[in-house]
Amino acid sequence: MKIAYLGPERTFTEKAARDLFQEGELVPLVHIRKVIQAVENGETEFGVIPFENYHNGKVIHTLDALSRYAAKARLIREKAFRIVHCIGALPNHREINNVFSKDQALEQCDEYLADNYPSATPVAVSSTSEAARRIAEEKLLNAAAISSEESLVSSGLEVMAKDICPNNLTRFIVLGRSPTRPTEDDKTFLAIHPPRMDEAGVLYGCLGFPAAYKVNLDDLLPRPDRRGGYYFYTEMSGHEQEPRIQRVLGDIKYFLDPENKSPDAVKVFGSYPNTHWKDTKR
Amino acid sequence: MKIAYLGPERTFTEKAARDLFQEGELVPLVHIRKVIQAVENGETEFGVIPFENYHNGKVIHTLDALSRYAAKARLIREKAFRIVHCIGALPNHREINNVFSKDQALEQCDEYLADNYPSATPVAVSSTSEAARRIAEEKLLNAAAISSEESLVSSGLEVMAKDICPNNLTRFIVLGRSPTRPTEDDKTFLAIHPPRMDEAGVLYGCLGFPAAYKVNLDDLLPRPDRRGGYYFYTEMSGHEQEPRIQRVLGDIKYFLDPENKSPDAVKVFGSYPNTHWKDTKR
Repeated sequence: MKIAYLGPERTFTEKAARDLFQEGELVPLVHIRKVIQAVENGETEFGVIPFENYHNGKVIHTLDALSRYAAKARLIREKAFRIVHCIGALPNHREINNVFSKDQALEQCDEYLADNYPSATPVAVSSTSEAARRIAEEKLLNAAAISSEESLVSSGLEVMAKDICPNNLTRFIVLGRSPTRPTEDDKTFLAIHPPRMDEAGVLYGCLGFPAAYKVNLDDLLPRPDRRGGYYFYTEMSGHEQEPRIQRVLGDIKYFLDPENKSPDAVKVFGSYPNTHWKDTKR
Repeated sequence: MKIAYLGPERTFTEKAARDLFQEGELVPLVHIRKVIQAVENGETEFGVIPFENYHNGKVIHTLDALSRYAAKARLIREKAFRIVHCIGALPNHREINNVFSKDQALEQCDEYLADNYPSATPVAVSSTSEAARRIAEEKLLNAAAISSEESLVSSGLEVMAKDICPNNLTRFIVLGRSPTRPTEDDKTFLAIHPPRMDEAGVLYGCLGFPAAYKVNLDDLLPRPDRRGGYYFYTEMSGHEQEPRIQRVLGDIKYFLDPENKSPDAVKVFGSYPNTHWKDTKR
């Protein structure tokens, strides 16, 4: 069994993939798109990608790539992991002018950086482990890296502060090709694509159906459709095979597209057990 | 008169700032937060920051920084500019393994990169001009940069393709300390902060008031409040001084916070003339 994950190796996503799959060969791929395509084409049975950070919201690369590349690949599981970011520099470092890390980690730690290194410029690199490696290899005395403690230490950096972004949870999703069966407590991830955003009340109309059936929505994240409109991504409480959810989805689809001309007016990406990840013990 | 803008120099934001302010001293600052703070503290009269890209949606750094740092600083004007991205490399370049640019530009061009350089790794650097400069200075033969044509050429790079992200508009906003007066056609930017997201229909409830008054919403962008909930950012058609908008805002505030305990249940960042930027001639 093969499991693709967003690489490179020695990142938080690899840890998550290993926790989610104790057995099987882990295959690191450097783009979220390629992980989705690997599952889509059957090159790997499963895929593991980051989906949402407690502090920084949904990963928009994941949403955009799901819309473009996922058809057979479905969301089948979610699990959140605690991410402990540390900041380190070379032992003989001077004043810190640059802070290297992955863009997501820089965003998660932006309050810490604004408070502690207000003049430093954040520099986005491809991964947190790459940030530590570069400072060590290029002997950058005016730079710090945000990474895991083990990655800082293994690159020979001195840990200056630990857990600089408290309560930092990242939720990962597992992609597979077989849809799940309903449990007592599931969620369904989908996108709503109103054909005309210039009409007052179009979103309001869409949300009336879940409200009427007491189906909860987590949030409603807009992404441009590149034609002047938006896909609104949302998670509904319930499984796509539940009659109640089928009614809600059918109602929204009919409301937006009564003549059935827009196949992407409502797109469902999968249903999976609700782990109530935001309540995970921190 | 001083105008702060998101630097460094020779970026698209500088061009926008110079177009918006033909006179006055332009002051480049390297964080969106610092531009807001400069206007907030009166160090500069105005500030210019990127707000939204046609392909890539609202700039979340701008939203987060407005929530944290803007009080006296208000949005007073919007204007969209056409951004022409080009890709270039050293004249004697070999196979392209890395593509350097600012994170936003990499995202805007991700379809082009997936089609033309599917194996290349995107590398985020601090600005588009920095991407071209680094390839030239470090003589990187396996790398390309996405930047403006003039920035590629002035760094000695060869332009391989022009305008690789068609219809690419970025909307900039001007911050100032004096609120605007209503015109015939304005928009108001605000955040809605529901105290309890676990309640089915809470968003639906909020959207009922603008729908009833035929006030349109552009989108509704959630950003985590770092306490398990969300701020939903939205633009309403109308000026905050219009009685109709005051009713809508008052209704939402009362709906979310009937006992007036949550000062940030509704936060208005300013009203400004609607340029209908998505209809801008491309």
